[in-house]
Amino acid sequence: MNMNELIIKKRNGGVLSEEEIRFIVDGYTDGSIPDYQMSSFLMATWFKGMNDEETTILTLAMAKSGDMLDLSDIFDDKKRIIDKHSTGGVGDKTTLIIGPILAALGVPVAKMSGRGLGHTGGTIDKLESIPGFSSDLSEEEFTEQVRTVGFSDMCQTKNLAPADKKIYALRDVTGTVDNYSLIASSVMSKKLAAGADGIVLDVKCGSGAFMKDIDSAKKLAEIMVNIGKNAGRDVTAVISDMNEPLGRFVGNTLEVLEALNVLRGGGDERLKELSVKLAAEMLRLAEKTAASDEAVMKDYIARIEEVIDNGAALAKFREFVAAQGGDTGFIDGTSELASARLMIPVKALKAGVLTGCDTEKIGTACLTLGGGREKLTDEIDPSVGIEINKHLGDSIDKGGLLAIIYANDEKKAEAAKKLILEAYSIEEGDAYHPEKLIKEIIR
Amino acid sequence: MNMNELIIKKRNGGVLSEEEIRFIVDGYTDGSIPDYQMSSFLMATWFKGMNDEETTILTLAMAKSGDMLDLSDIFDDKKRIIDKHSTGGVGDKTTLIIGPILAALGVPVAKMSGRGLGHTGGTIDKLESIPGFSSDLSEEEFTEQVRTVGFSDMCQTKNLAPADKKIYALRDVTGTVDNYSLIASSVMSKKLAAGADGIVLDVKCGSGAFMKDIDSAKKLAEIMVNIGKNAGRDVTAVISDMNEPLGRFVGNTLEVLEALNVLRGGGDERLKELSVKLAAEMLRLAEKTAASDEAVMKDYIARIEEVIDNGAALAKFREFVAAQGGDTGFIDGTSELASARLMIPVKALKAGVLTGCDTEKIGTACLTLGGGREKLTDEIDPSVGIEINKHLGDSIDKGGLLAIIYANDEKKAEAAKKLILEAYSIEEGDAYHPEKLIKEIIR
Repeated sequence: MNMNELIIKKRNGGVLSEEEIRFIVDGYTDGSIPDYQMSSFLMATWFKGMNDEETTILTLAMAKSGDMLDLSDIFDDKKRIIDKHSTGGVGDKTTLIIGPILAALGVPVAKMSGRGLGHTGGTIDKLESIPGFSSDLSEEEFTEQVRTVGFSDMCQTKNLAPADKKIYALRDVTGTVDNYSLIASSVMSKKLAAGADGIVLDVKCGSGAFMKDIDSAKKLAEIMVNIGKNAGRDVTAVISDMNEPLGRFVGNTLEVLEALNVLRGGGDERLKELSVKLAAEMLRLAEKTAASDEAVMKDYIARIEEVIDNGAALAKFREFVAAQGGDTGFIDGTSELASARLMIPVKALKAGVLTGCDTEKIGTACLTLGGGREKLTDEIDPSVGIEINKHLGDSIDKGGLLAIIYANDEKKAEAAKKLILEAYSIEEGDAYHPEKLIKEIIR
Repeated sequence: MNMNELIIKKRNGGVLSEEEIRFIVDGYTDGSIPDYQMSSFLMATWFKGMNDEETTILTLAMAKSGDMLDLSDIFDDKKRIIDKHSTGGVGDKTTLIIGPILAALGVPVAKMSGRGLGHTGGTIDKLESIPGFSSDLSEEEFTEQVRTVGFSDMCQTKNLAPADKKIYALRDVTGTVDNYSLIASSVMSKKLAAGADGIVLDVKCGSGAFMKDIDSAKKLAEIMVNIGKNAGRDVTAVISDMNEPLGRFVGNTLEVLEALNVLRGGGDERLKELSVKLAAEMLRLAEKTAASDEAVMKDYIARIEEVIDNGAALAKFREFVAAQGGDTGFIDGTSELASARLMIPVKALKAGVLTGCDTEKIGTACLTLGGGREKLTDEIDPSVGIEINKHLGDSIDKGGLLAIIYANDEKKAEAAKKLILEAYSIEEGDAYHPEKLIKEIIR
């Protein structure tokens, strides 16, 4: 096979065979196909797309390019293991809430998470703001913790879908990021390699997400669910609103504390609602229930609320943190997580209703404070962040408290303040049209 | 400026500015833009194209990436210097005929030629089949010979449009060869850098050419003429038929001898006609005659035929070969060029009229014999080749002589024979529709 000919085939709108796609992925991974041919191929794919079958083959080829975790032997009774993935938003700390809930319900959650990049946070960064917490587990430690605690969250191993890692880095600098098949295969290759039986995808949609509108979010969700089905996994995609940050807090330490609040029965309503509904979908996949009608889902939600109310989920959270070496003092009130030196109020410049939020700017404000990464090698300051005092649709007075900035540097705080004020639209009258938190569920 | 953003701009159908295109060409030439970004950009350009202005800017940026020959001081009387370029065909030896003709008419021809690759021959290879002939001239030797002899043909210097060289090599392996703007800018960047005042382009069209149909040949021709005009040069494009080899012979030594025949007043009719008409267009550009009506062109053709008939063109050919170190014995009959060991007839498998020729296959047959290059580092056997005994439209009997193979290896000859027989369609009745030799002239 000749890579130049395969580039031309795709460029001319051809459909590639399994053999051809595997030739490309394997060749690129082992270095026999150079970057410059791969980038040209990716651009041809950007223009011509891939059909469902090609996308599935691509995903599986990338998944198989490295280690495929085999979780089937963890439990003697072949208990189904569930994973969860978010396509990336601002203020999303649902994993910290959902993992302990499901573990408390006896559903094992084996999750590999990433670090944050750009305006989007990463679960691993949030967890690592807990002193002592380690996400750098061996495969054995990981699976053992899933077996004993019921929830483990580790950094993606080096050899998890290395083809995806290499292809993603190339797409990032060659104008080929925003293509459905390429995005879907990138997400799903890692999920398939991570070995869970069921996967719930939280596809974020809105100003803080990669997918800005419902049509594109739905298209991406459908492709990913379809890949999962073709690969023999149960996948559900929940399309959730990301037109404002999820919850009240953005920033690593602040988000851990907010997740803790929810596990204690309090916390932000929208954050809790999304966490509970994602958990319910995961429970459904764990029990392989075909039905998804209201009565069935209500029952799942009741069981979830029970483990929040009776403290079982909180106990699992403590157990999970301790198992990965984290100091649990902040849960029990015997110690505190690192806090920022400065608290700076952000006051509304005029009165009105919050009608819109450029959520990416809120993410960028946190990045500006030092709470995120511009490039992979940047160090993070876990203590900084933003508390948002209002949701979209809320009224605010001129000079009213819109947000609080947690910072360690006045200059950075000033820049963040500017971004936050720019991000929010405040208008008189009733121009605000509320978005549903959960826009659609694709099962 | 950021290359990733420029890739995305082109990918999304944007028009690039002069500054942006120069950033890309200069950056790629000096290595600050890597291959993988350039190939992705080229693929985006393949899909979205470039407008006339972008194409001219690209061409000039590539031309200026290396040495720009300044031929303006060769003649005290600022005589106009003319160049000629063919887009590549099979059996095209017109340069060897035209250069001496124009030199005999007092029109200086400064030509840089390439070597053959694939099914297409190269003028340098043909000339180098003459013992002692050197195409490796210094710029000073080249211009001095243009001044004294009136015709020089050298191998493109290393530093002639190096951006084009680098970009072409990349296009060749990334599925981005066949795009009008990229082809036109590649050809014209070298022609602009080579410094002639007037350029006649022979755009080949048909089964042996890159452009298979008249519409695409015309489109390419118009883009190239337009680039020339925008860059302040006089350019004429002649679209000529390449649905069968030009002349009777394909192969390096054989083609030199065939050119010699034409300069002696004989030779193949079609070869002579195209040579004369291209020469007439060059004469027109040399004299900067706006008119191109039949009477004017007839006058040019009469002057051209005169220097053939009176031997002046042949004398110039001898002078040209000698000036570049070649042994002129083969012109005077005192020595012979290398000849092949075997002459193998190719006989028609059935009777009928020659209705079509897959000319690329004839080029490939010559390549198979060792008369061409599959890759740039291959050595050529100048003595091998093919003599075609029939033109399209001619009748042939079953067993009649279709061609003669000149070879040094039986096995290779067998393979060439197979290709030649495959190449020609022989049909009964009058299914043949003759193609005009010169399809169109774009001035």
